[in-house]
Amino acid sequence: VKERLQKLRESARKLRTAPLAQRNKVLEKAAELLIERQSEILKANALDLQLLAEEATPAFRDRLLLNESRLKQAGESLRQVAALPDPINEVVEQKVLANGLKLRRVRAPLGVIFMIFESRPNVALESFSLAIKSGNILILRGGKESMKTTAAIYEILCEALESAGFSREFFWGITDSSRDLVKSLLRERQWIDVVVPRGGEGLIQFVVENSSIPIIKNDRGLCHVYVHEDADIKKALAIVENAKTQRPGVCNAMETLLVNEKIASKFLPEMHERLKAKGVQWFGCPKSVNILSGKSGVLSATDKSFDTEYLDLKMSCKVVASLDEAIRHIEEHGSRHSESILTESEKTARIFQEECDAAAVYWNASTRFTDGFEFGLGGELGISTQKLHARGPVGLKELTSLRWIIDGSGQIRG
Amino acid sequence: VKERLQKLRESARKLRTAPLAQRNKVLEKAAELLIERQSEILKANALDLQLLAEEATPAFRDRLLLNESRLKQAGESLRQVAALPDPINEVVEQKVLANGLKLRRVRAPLGVIFMIFESRPNVALESFSLAIKSGNILILRGGKESMKTTAAIYEILCEALESAGFSREFFWGITDSSRDLVKSLLRERQWIDVVVPRGGEGLIQFVVENSSIPIIKNDRGLCHVYVHEDADIKKALAIVENAKTQRPGVCNAMETLLVNEKIASKFLPEMHERLKAKGVQWFGCPKSVNILSGKSGVLSATDKSFDTEYLDLKMSCKVVASLDEAIRHIEEHGSRHSESILTESEKTARIFQEECDAAAVYWNASTRFTDGFEFGLGGELGISTQKLHARGPVGLKELTSLRWIIDGSGQIRG
Repeated sequence: VKERLQKLRESARKLRTAPLAQRNKVLEKAAELLIERQSEILKANALDLQLLAEEATPAFRDRLLLNESRLKQAGESLRQVAALPDPINEVVEQKVLANGLKLRRVRAPLGVIFMIFESRPNVALESFSLAIKSGNILILRGGKESMKTTAAIYEILCEALESAGFSREFFWGITDSSRDLVKSLLRERQWIDVVVPRGGEGLIQFVVENSSIPIIKNDRGLCHVYVHEDADIKKALAIVENAKTQRPGVCNAMETLLVNEKIASKFLPEMHERLKAKGVQWFGCPKSVNILSGKSGVLSATDKSFDTEYLDLKMSCKVVASLDEAIRHIEEHGSRHSESILTESEKTARIFQEECDAAAVYWNASTRFTDGFEFGLGGELGISTQKLHARGPVGLKELTSLRWIIDGSGQIRG
Repeated sequence: VKERLQKLRESARKLRTAPLAQRNKVLEKAAELLIERQSEILKANALDLQLLAEEATPAFRDRLLLNESRLKQAGESLRQVAALPDPINEVVEQKVLANGLKLRRVRAPLGVIFMIFESRPNVALESFSLAIKSGNILILRGGKESMKTTAAIYEILCEALESAGFSREFFWGITDSSRDLVKSLLRERQWIDVVVPRGGEGLIQFVVENSSIPIIKNDRGLCHVYVHEDADIKKALAIVENAKTQRPGVCNAMETLLVNEKIASKFLPEMHERLKAKGVQWFGCPKSVNILSGKSGVLSATDKSFDTEYLDLKMSCKVVASLDEAIRHIEEHGSRHSESILTESEKTARIFQEECDAAAVYWNASTRFTDGFEFGLGGELGISTQKLHARGPVGLKELTSLRWIIDGSGQIRG
């Protein structure tokens, strides 16, 4: 293991100064190989699906599944990342000090990144492309259910590196499903610069508890939409429906609806009608349950409801007395991911946006947009819910940090 | 403890949106109180010094010592931080997406910062001023040798908060010297956003091993100056002398001198002559020991020399065959803090600056400039040697991170 890590570190030094064209070539080659060798990947994927436990949910099975169109899409996003501008050596600040020293603050790769992810094998391709483009060496470790699929993908990534004139030592795709290896890697802070866990709460908890390496955490998304008293009802119905149902299993989906008491009795029945067709189940506070009494799929919220990330066609609902109560509810129960206010007042929106301490705070839009691709970052390694380093989608820039380059002419400190 | 942390979190929410004038008033008031109440502080400091163990080094004693002029200086830097522009809500990027969503990326405080420092009591003042200015709540825990001094300082900081209309709950100065409290706080990731250890290797190690909260690490500085074959000898003599001797006990001082073999036999004897007056002790590689044979204070380097941060009038010295060997030596032994190349060739300097992966890389200047004040950041909470979040001096901007504010007009995701 040490030897392997040492080689990755050497590769990191080389990759950091490799020309953009060579880094892009890796991605273009991987996109080609993905099509050329798709039968291999799909065969491995079929095996993984076969071995999947009976009790795996359809959603889980779907996340694991690859097919021609998903691979084609993955290839396209590899090419899109290749087309993005180079993040390395971008000068973000410069100044000349009184003593004549010229300072430039430039972007540099983080180094060696250890990413641990679950189920979706496409994550391997997206992460690899962002890492190589930003000059970072990646160690990847997927979920044990996707080991055969990811092994086939890793082979293609290594061949793409070789075609572009790098070596296989520029990547480590782990195909061993032991947790001990992961645990021991989490202590190798001499060789690994950053750990990125992307998955369920169990994984995040495990990494946070065991890592002595800095982490970019992609924690859960407990996102709220707050409908203020002066909201445009038509917009509100569409936004809440979208935030909850367009893709309920993802972290930027809405989990809790907050409604101002002044419009609750008008808005909630309309909202319920709209969501009925999608089969959404409600967990409401006493006031909302009262307003919706007799309607289908409405249950009383328990103590835990407002802290639950359903990732499903279920939602919590609470009637609040004021903007301030909404903000305080979010402060207490939110996961600092994405929050949205629906109001026709800019002043109200600005208070909400300033006081809600989340990575992305929306005014009159669905929370579903918090995504590296949507934000124009070319994809994402995950969506950070911590405050250090990066908040929200982790794209190319977020895979770099800033260092100082200083030109002098003999300056000494007095 | 939980109750205290909960109150700090509430304070963080208030401070985050408090007006600039109010935050500045805290610093101005603290600067006044520092002068008004200096006898109290100096009395407490005298007690700490009295209780100091006999075997404490003069350097340690000096770091702990406060006097009128040091307090005056501290007051001035509080006023300087107050005069700096507000980092909060600075818009660093904006764009409009094709769907009409308006994105702004703005600076926001980190939240609650737990800083652990050793000896120099002035660090409390500098850290407090940067934290309050950048909208962050600070928990401070100083070394046990300075507990009486820091307790007196904490009292003044609390009074300054109260004079500015905040409460004492906006700061927690820990006056309990138990390590258990520190250890338990390092697990409170629900309440504390960032931990900043600033001190010796023992402290850093302890925090890295025990914290589940993200860390900004201020590790050791093993800094190199490399004298290339075409260096201007006069500049080189002055820069190396400054980097080693101007203040040897700090992290940006030079610990290892690297010299190209083409000029070693000319340069090293002159350098030795220059440093003799300061009493610098050399730990040289065989070639440099050979060149300096018979000179005073020249010893042979051991296996450990090139990994030693002397923080003293001692240095390692190595003759290298090429620019590449110098870079590789730094890659292996450096701590990614500050490195400098002395050369008259811009091309050579650029290779060194790009390939040396340190927070600050100099061309023809002393490493001693890596410092928040020198860089115009208004001070520093420390000098980060990690790659995540911030590299180099941690000033006001580095105490913030970026979040997204998004304005829509009813956008939903398709």
